[in-house]
Amino acid sequence: MRIALDAMGGDHGPEMLIQGAIAAVEERKDLEVLLVGPEDFLHGQLAVAVTGKPANISERLTIQHAPEVVGMDESPVDAVRKKKNSTVMVSFDLVKSGNADAVVSAGNSGATLAAGVRKLGRLPGVSRPGIASFFPTLQRPVMLMDIGANVDCRPQHLYQFAVMASSCSSLLLNIKDPRIGLLSIGEESGKGNALVKETYDLLQHGSLNFVGNVEGRDVYKGDVDVIVCDGFVGNISLKISEGLAEAATQMLKKEIMKTWRAKIGYLFIRKAFADFRKQVDYAEYGGAPLLGINGTGIICHGTSNATAIRNAIKVASDMVCNKVNDVIVQALRQ
Amino acid sequence: MRIALDAMGGDHGPEMLIQGAIAAVEERKDLEVLLVGPEDFLHGQLAVAVTGKPANISERLTIQHAPEVVGMDESPVDAVRKKKNSTVMVSFDLVKSGNADAVVSAGNSGATLAAGVRKLGRLPGVSRPGIASFFPTLQRPVMLMDIGANVDCRPQHLYQFAVMASSCSSLLLNIKDPRIGLLSIGEESGKGNALVKETYDLLQHGSLNFVGNVEGRDVYKGDVDVIVCDGFVGNISLKISEGLAEAATQMLKKEIMKTWRAKIGYLFIRKAFADFRKQVDYAEYGGAPLLGINGTGIICHGTSNATAIRNAIKVASDMVCNKVNDVIVQALRQ
Repeated sequence: MRIALDAMGGDHGPEMLIQGAIAAVEERKDLEVLLVGPEDFLHGQLAVAVTGKPANISERLTIQHAPEVVGMDESPVDAVRKKKNSTVMVSFDLVKSGNADAVVSAGNSGATLAAGVRKLGRLPGVSRPGIASFFPTLQRPVMLMDIGANVDCRPQHLYQFAVMASSCSSLLLNIKDPRIGLLSIGEESGKGNALVKETYDLLQHGSLNFVGNVEGRDVYKGDVDVIVCDGFVGNISLKISEGLAEAATQMLKKEIMKTWRAKIGYLFIRKAFADFRKQVDYAEYGGAPLLGINGTGIICHGTSNATAIRNAIKVASDMVCNKVNDVIVQALRQ
Repeated sequence: MRIALDAMGGDHGPEMLIQGAIAAVEERKDLEVLLVGPEDFLHGQLAVAVTGKPANISERLTIQHAPEVVGMDESPVDAVRKKKNSTVMVSFDLVKSGNADAVVSAGNSGATLAAGVRKLGRLPGVSRPGIASFFPTLQRPVMLMDIGANVDCRPQHLYQFAVMASSCSSLLLNIKDPRIGLLSIGEESGKGNALVKETYDLLQHGSLNFVGNVEGRDVYKGDVDVIVCDGFVGNISLKISEGLAEAATQMLKKEIMKTWRAKIGYLFIRKAFADFRKQVDYAEYGGAPLLGINGTGIICHGTSNATAIRNAIKVASDMVCNKVNDVIVQALRQ
């Protein structure tokens, strides 16, 4: 199992990414990670990071040269067109040539998607590849698709998202017949915008385990396994959740800092807070699978720490082992 | 100032609504509340509620008979067509006949909107009335419109939401030139779905204080005063926030209950939690103004408590006093 890691993507720089790669190869003995980036620069970084590590770790971390880097704010279309030797393009080249099994990148997510589609093409039967992401819930995580790749969708696209996310979530979380929900503004079949109403009909007559509409307030309950929406709504759902969590934490911290009594209480309660944060931490969820391309790619949050990278590499490996793409193609054929 | 209160709307029954009405008339000396509902039933409820209250309170609470009640799950269209004597229809009748200045309802929100439009019509220049709502932020509250009335919109509709919400927020919160943001998936003008991109152009060439796109993660920062979106996206944004807050509270509570240490810490920190909850409590924000109808209406959450009803009545009075509708008509003319 060989994973190509875009070693220049993300907000924290290569050091954090290399730490994640080391943690991944320590965990899984048959795993190799190809660190893709400027050779000379990465050599120094890698040498420092593996100092003191046994040879069976360091020998499974190799560098693949890629001289260009796509900036976080660069236009994905421009990046794919103009930077042929960028870390993300070379990463997908490695998959195309059979030298890697999957790509993990915490860089510009639009460019990662565009590079994946450009280099590997779409799976047979897929109109629009998209990005799926796990959300923590009161029960097991729910997979939401699409979280931003496709902002204007037709019902057929949403239907395909449901098929792809259902296959993926079934294999990764070992769920028989994942329950599929359609994100809308009311539970009844007549509720929603035109896109949702038409998608409802498609899903109702399809062979997936469709359980109906899911309202925004039920997303975090965990009563379904997959939630389908267009990329505009999905992106806003994801980002508004992140923003609310951040704002609420700040507000609560401010209230706690107001009195000595509360500050003392916080000392006692700190571990519970930390455990809670771990429960909802995106880093535990292993990045967002890029579904519908003819290969495997995982998009990580720009702020990913080593744990997030390790988990993303793990999810990428699991997707390859479980042949998620074969199952998707099979399901779309039906 | 006379407010018609749908005395049968909401999940908690008339008792809670009457308590809210009492709190409102206690706070404001020139205010009367007309309790709209089945006369005989309400007489008993009101008599109990005002026992021991001075005459200058009880005499400003009167009952207006309306025999029918619209259920929370009834179709708004059917309700407006078939239940002509429902509490919500009679409430708007009172405004139409000049016997009340505004309506407050915690009942079926779709039916409230439909009844308002049917009875009072639209303001000149308004294509689609909608529902605005305040969201708490790290700074002052932000007004989001539309939160669910119009699920399929054209750019012109979103533009009008911006004009209406700008006028309303300016007058209610005393903000000169509210900063208007457009909810999207990236800050740059090219980001978003087709609807958002076209709306961006309209807003950019209009006379409002348009500051550009706002991403989901920035909604709770409070860097803008008004956020515009279609009712599908707005409803999901609102509901997903409610759901996340609820789920996070449950998860945190579970972690705290796991150890004695954390339970003791909670005793010290409880007040900070309560103050935090108050800060983000919808009840403090006084319901959701129905903007674009030729009159004033406030839609409250079904779970509204007395505080929420009191604040909604206050907001309704403020809207009437500040002649929000006149300002909207003026602004739309420009």
